[in-house]
Amino acid sequence: MSFFPASLETLIDRFASLPGIGRKSAQRLAFHILSLPDEEATAFADAITEAKANVHCCRICQNLTEGEVCAICASDRRDKSTICVVSEPRDVLSIERGREYNGTYHVLHGVLSPMNHVGPDDIRIKELLVRAAEDEVEEVIMATNPDTEGEATAMYISRLLKPFQIKVTRLAYGIPVGSNLEFADDATLNRAIEGRTEM
Amino acid sequence: MSFFPASLETLIDRFASLPGIGRKSAQRLAFHILSLPDEEATAFADAITEAKANVHCCRICQNLTEGEVCAICASDRRDKSTICVVSEPRDVLSIERGREYNGTYHVLHGVLSPMNHVGPDDIRIKELLVRAAEDEVEEVIMATNPDTEGEATAMYISRLLKPFQIKVTRLAYGIPVGSNLEFADDATLNRAIEGRTEM
Repeated sequence: MSFFPASLETLIDRFASLPGIGRKSAQRLAFHILSLPDEEATAFADAITEAKANVHCCRICQNLTEGEVCAICASDRRDKSTICVVSEPRDVLSIERGREYNGTYHVLHGVLSPMNHVGPDDIRIKELLVRAAEDEVEEVIMATNPDTEGEATAMYISRLLKPFQIKVTRLAYGIPVGSNLEFADDATLNRAIEGRTEM
Repeated sequence: MSFFPASLETLIDRFASLPGIGRKSAQRLAFHILSLPDEEATAFADAITEAKANVHCCRICQNLTEGEVCAICASDRRDKSTICVVSEPRDVLSIERGREYNGTYHVLHGVLSPMNHVGPDDIRIKELLVRAAEDEVEEVIMATNPDTEGEATAMYISRLLKPFQIKVTRLAYGIPVGSNLEFADDATLNRAIEGRTEM
């Protein structure tokens, strides 16, 4: 039995359908929306509609953009010979935050996952191969997440890139900066020892 | 510096303005919205607009409703002689969930809070007094939260209700059912001893 008016229930249901939002949080969010001034609630609804209408994938790197080509692909100052392959648009943000990488990106929008029926045609691998076919590209850095699916995807793509004679690299594994050896897991420590560098 | 398209940033800002949603969660939610089919994103935006447009306060009890009078006030089967005073619409849901209370409600939409400049005219006390003036009401149960502001509000209202010769009661304090004495705080235990009942 529902104790809320129908349109409030609908709004609660919508919030509850978002990832990480439970029923109680959804109620709190819906009540918050009702408590907003009319113009702010309308602005919220408009923000959804407009983001959905305006944002699409960059023709080149598949990152989210409002133009035909994203700011990074359009920039003269980025090194077009290096492509960093990530699984999600938010990963671009993570790497950009470091302010060191100056190449371009390629966003796969997912990883290979046979369990979830995600195959090579479901993510943007084809578009990467098209870019690799251009002679400008010299290195592809695989920066998918260091989990099973991310690893498998990186491995799969690196094999596809073999014929293009492009250098394919992988992000280094090791202990995180500022962390504590005591809390590092075995697999990470082993990788850190394997990948040790001369001082 | 922003790495996302402007309309995506706007959407992230909107989500981040909701209570309990941080910047990272807001990003995740905004990306989720973008990943939805067009019609579902539109339905989300519409749910906000419609809830905001259709939901207002019941003329009698001030609870949220789409009609002029809420389902509880309109029902013949509810005991109109008892009013349970709560601070927020969600508190009605909490009490209804118990399926024991059969009276009506009065939603204050806030509590007295001098620190936040919330005075008696900012919450729906006047409307409660109008109802109390009708001769039907026999008992008012104060069910504001058991914190300082909730207590003060209950105390203030009970004094206003004195002249109407209505029985004013307060929810019982005590140890929660199924809890452990070990973890009960001193104030609660003291109240539970004060309010002990004969077996």
